[in-house]
Amino acid sequence: MPEYKAPLREIKFVTDEVLDMPAHYASLPAFADVATPDMVDAIVTEGAKFCENVIAPLNKVGDQEGCTRHEDGTVTTPTGFKAAYQQFVEAGWPSMTHNEKFGGQGLPESLGIVMSEMVGTANWSWGMYPGLSHGAMNTITRWGSEEQKETYLHNLVSGEWTGTMCLTEPACGSDLGILKTKAEPNADGSYAISGTKIFISAGEHDMSGNIIHIVLARLPGAPEGTKGISLFIVPKYVVNEDGSLQGERNDLICGSIEHKMGIHGNSTCVMNFDGAKGWLIGEENKGLNCMFTFMNTARIGTALQGVAAAEGSFQGALTYARDRLAMRSLTGAKFPEKAADPIIVHPDVRKMLLTQKAFAEGGRALVYLTSKQNDIVHHGETEEERKAADDMLGFLTPIAKAFLTEVGLESANHGVQVYGGHGFIAEWGMEQIVRDTRISTLYEGTTGIQALDLLGRKVLMTQGGALKNFTKLMHTFCKEEADNEELAPFVTKLTEMNKEWGDLTMKVGMTAMKDRNEVGSASVDYLMYSGYVTLAYIWAKMAKVAQTALSNGTSEEDFYKAKLTTARFYFARILPRTNFHAESMVAGADTLMDLAEEHFQF
Amino acid sequence: MPEYKAPLREIKFVTDEVLDMPAHYASLPAFADVATPDMVDAIVTEGAKFCENVIAPLNKVGDQEGCTRHEDGTVTTPTGFKAAYQQFVEAGWPSMTHNEKFGGQGLPESLGIVMSEMVGTANWSWGMYPGLSHGAMNTITRWGSEEQKETYLHNLVSGEWTGTMCLTEPACGSDLGILKTKAEPNADGSYAISGTKIFISAGEHDMSGNIIHIVLARLPGAPEGTKGISLFIVPKYVVNEDGSLQGERNDLICGSIEHKMGIHGNSTCVMNFDGAKGWLIGEENKGLNCMFTFMNTARIGTALQGVAAAEGSFQGALTYARDRLAMRSLTGAKFPEKAADPIIVHPDVRKMLLTQKAFAEGGRALVYLTSKQNDIVHHGETEEERKAADDMLGFLTPIAKAFLTEVGLESANHGVQVYGGHGFIAEWGMEQIVRDTRISTLYEGTTGIQALDLLGRKVLMTQGGALKNFTKLMHTFCKEEADNEELAPFVTKLTEMNKEWGDLTMKVGMTAMKDRNEVGSASVDYLMYSGYVTLAYIWAKMAKVAQTALSNGTSEEDFYKAKLTTARFYFARILPRTNFHAESMVAGADTLMDLAEEHFQF
Repeated sequence: MPEYKAPLREIKFVTDEVLDMPAHYASLPAFADVATPDMVDAIVTEGAKFCENVIAPLNKVGDQEGCTRHEDGTVTTPTGFKAAYQQFVEAGWPSMTHNEKFGGQGLPESLGIVMSEMVGTANWSWGMYPGLSHGAMNTITRWGSEEQKETYLHNLVSGEWTGTMCLTEPACGSDLGILKTKAEPNADGSYAISGTKIFISAGEHDMSGNIIHIVLARLPGAPEGTKGISLFIVPKYVVNEDGSLQGERNDLICGSIEHKMGIHGNSTCVMNFDGAKGWLIGEENKGLNCMFTFMNTARIGTALQGVAAAEGSFQGALTYARDRLAMRSLTGAKFPEKAADPIIVHPDVRKMLLTQKAFAEGGRALVYLTSKQNDIVHHGETEEERKAADDMLGFLTPIAKAFLTEVGLESANHGVQVYGGHGFIAEWGMEQIVRDTRISTLYEGTTGIQALDLLGRKVLMTQGGALKNFTKLMHTFCKEEADNEELAPFVTKLTEMNKEWGDLTMKVGMTAMKDRNEVGSASVDYLMYSGYVTLAYIWAKMAKVAQTALSNGTSEEDFYKAKLTTARFYFARILPRTNFHAESMVAGADTLMDLAEEHFQF
Repeated sequence: MPEYKAPLREIKFVTDEVLDMPAHYASLPAFADVATPDMVDAIVTEGAKFCENVIAPLNKVGDQEGCTRHEDGTVTTPTGFKAAYQQFVEAGWPSMTHNEKFGGQGLPESLGIVMSEMVGTANWSWGMYPGLSHGAMNTITRWGSEEQKETYLHNLVSGEWTGTMCLTEPACGSDLGILKTKAEPNADGSYAISGTKIFISAGEHDMSGNIIHIVLARLPGAPEGTKGISLFIVPKYVVNEDGSLQGERNDLICGSIEHKMGIHGNSTCVMNFDGAKGWLIGEENKGLNCMFTFMNTARIGTALQGVAAAEGSFQGALTYARDRLAMRSLTGAKFPEKAADPIIVHPDVRKMLLTQKAFAEGGRALVYLTSKQNDIVHHGETEEERKAADDMLGFLTPIAKAFLTEVGLESANHGVQVYGGHGFIAEWGMEQIVRDTRISTLYEGTTGIQALDLLGRKVLMTQGGALKNFTKLMHTFCKEEADNEELAPFVTKLTEMNKEWGDLTMKVGMTAMKDRNEVGSASVDYLMYSGYVTLAYIWAKMAKVAQTALSNGTSEEDFYKAKLTTARFYFARILPRTNFHAESMVAGADTLMDLAEEHFQF
């Protein structure tokens, strides 16, 4: 069972050297005084200790024990989960990125993301409890009335209470327009919420004193479809205005815990609302719009699961590949004194390790870059800056979410494969990563949904504008490095891809004008293509940073050389996957639509 | 939870129309009288009923209950497994392909494969019990003395006893050369076997009266490495010459059952041999050669797991895609009377379904084609025929095993993805297929091992001869259809790929002469490339059969049109993956070897 080690040097490489976050924080008045380099270092170092020492050791326990629902609908989390959460609260972690007015520390989301990465890699199931709470807090902060904020936020920010997001129902997931949960007005201005919500992460548990559910429901006579959905706060225990509990339990209960492939440590609940008291947040019938405001944040959080799967499985596989002996190197024994060579000498084992490494390190940089936009959207000084960052955020989010979770799942499977038969055995920890991360391409919008969002809404609806904003960055980088001989292979390839990306977009856009199915036919290939190219840009940037460090002289020569080698690996062995996606995306919707529905048979 | 339906029409399409198995059986004296069309039909029809009605309903039970080891080392299989096995034995299924001399029915292996496919898709874990027994029987049939055959085969063939293959040890899997289990000669001509074997499928269970273990071990003073391994028969209960049991248990015991990601219904055991009585089979120190004779058969069986995963997940996903409502078709509502359209209208959902379908149907044809060679190897009339079939078998086996299990795993993941969040929930059955089939790329030689076998042993060591034998078939097909306008897109592409496959092989071969690591660097890409091209040939052949049926007039127009449409889909949306593998395989071993072992860090 591999121990998690927070990759602090790797994190610092991205935050300080690739993305220059210290300058970014200094430039934003909201963070200049709080997110100082010393403070950031202290937070990351302390966070790493918590993740390594407190929650990583609970990862296997959580998987094996799962959560237990009792007859009265209460739920017990796995051994150690509650105590770890208490430590987390005592150390003030829940309040990190929240408003100082409600007890928060006012630190940037992008710093929260660093902590979330470490928490998620150490123990994804555990991390979902504070993770969902974070989403609920963000929703109340943005859409709640001043009274609602006063009533709920203090205890949520401190971590004494937690929160959830209740969207999905048995017959509706991706298509929230058909949801059925009802909200009937009560005489006192509250609403009676009735309906069944499923897949509610952290829906019921024993960690916190109250659970604040954010629930999507329909008002009587609301328009059909997505335009008739409103958003409600529905607490497990009804709260007085001063934040104290009324004591009686609200009319909602966990009906059962889902039997899942993975993330057993998280309490994924069927929640039955039976006239539960709730309060409207935001305007009537604007609930879905309110939700979408925070979709990007939630989706960046899910993108992290891809990074976590790649990093966690890389750490496990690398440890094993150094230890396990099997056969000799194809070029002759490398360790003749041993019964056989460690399997890290074999090219294909290295291919799997390098793939995990390239996705983990490149993925981290992509998520941090995306989250950096989020800081600017909320705290940028000018409207123009905020707008530009919002466009970039909207463009990068579906790529980060869908692409990184897909390659995270691939990486986790490589982890199993490096272990051979042992990868299939629970004790070694590799198969759990596959099971846990399998959910990541499904929730918060499947890969298919993200792909339609990227190609349909973000790219085609902006006439390619959002894409151009990004490819401009690539273009600038390539121009700046045009005379850099060592980087020439990267720059030449990136320049080609930049053009091809635009050409393919144009081609898909043209056919889509004649047949809307062309969008759906191309979308997932387009998304994966975009992901590989985006990561190529990031790896080229990282290669540039490494090259600069090496030419300036450094005591960490090996570290920077490994970056250059990994970048070369990525360009030679991973990036050619775009060849396939480029051909497939323009093959035509008829390849998918020609077979009549009734002729699909078995 | 999807019900398994044996795809009888699909099976008949491959056996009768694509591979012309009736003519094949008629041409082999061993089978002409037994494997008549009527007999084959009756067997497949009866087999289908057994799989659908008896073992498919136990698939979920097996997963949930798993196997239970008791303190005395005995193991209880999941509820219903034993009774189903009794029905299987009573109906005579274990004896199907075995020698009539020992009570077998003398039917072809390729017909056994059809039954194995249905058994495996219905309930893979259950199918492993008779599956392993089959391997043990084949080993004794080929290498046992006449006495040993008399002693063991009657009860194995009837199914009263079962068998296992005990190869792997804690420190050795792929590299059997380092195994440690010892065989010390006893005075009575038997051997005392001592050591620990792991991952022993069906190692201990409650289904049969005795378990005959085939065990790899070392004699005292045996040469190191693979040249010092011998093969032993080690029964759970020692057997008298007449086949009756001596009563006392041999000195071997199941030490524990592995905690696995999937195939919970199979009893995967750690087996401790503590001076157990065993008898040498075959010559001293030739055990590994004996094993390799049967590797091909075992590997074809494992290739079936890929087909089973694709077929099973396709059946489940198709059923769900017709039922589940979400959003409207991009071209406007297709079912305006419903709250939303069924998700089968969405192009990307169809892409996943068509991918599963293309792999299931193409994979089935590839496995049956491979198994057809196996019939000829053992029963062909001339030495020349047998040799040619053996070469073809050796070439196709690593492709079928590794490629089909990889795309089977992919297909199973598409099954989960089509179900969205529900795919992650146990009740729907999709996640079990992913967990069960995850082992298939690991056991019987990992994908990496198969790839080295294909590129190193089968292709480069024959100077490309084995490849040429196969590409000659493709070439002949393309020449025959050169003037066939409707097939022109397939034929043109196949002709190109035929040339490219040869060119790439030459290129890899040349670099490998300078650096052996080039073989390992290219091997997995080479294998996947070969798999996609092989399946393209098969889909082109199936398209040809469909075209002929349509032009001759048929009452099953939809069936054959679906074949043509699926072939077009495969060529347009799957085959372009070769673009990636072609570029990656010749990118050079330095892309993998440049990073010094100690510079892999986290």
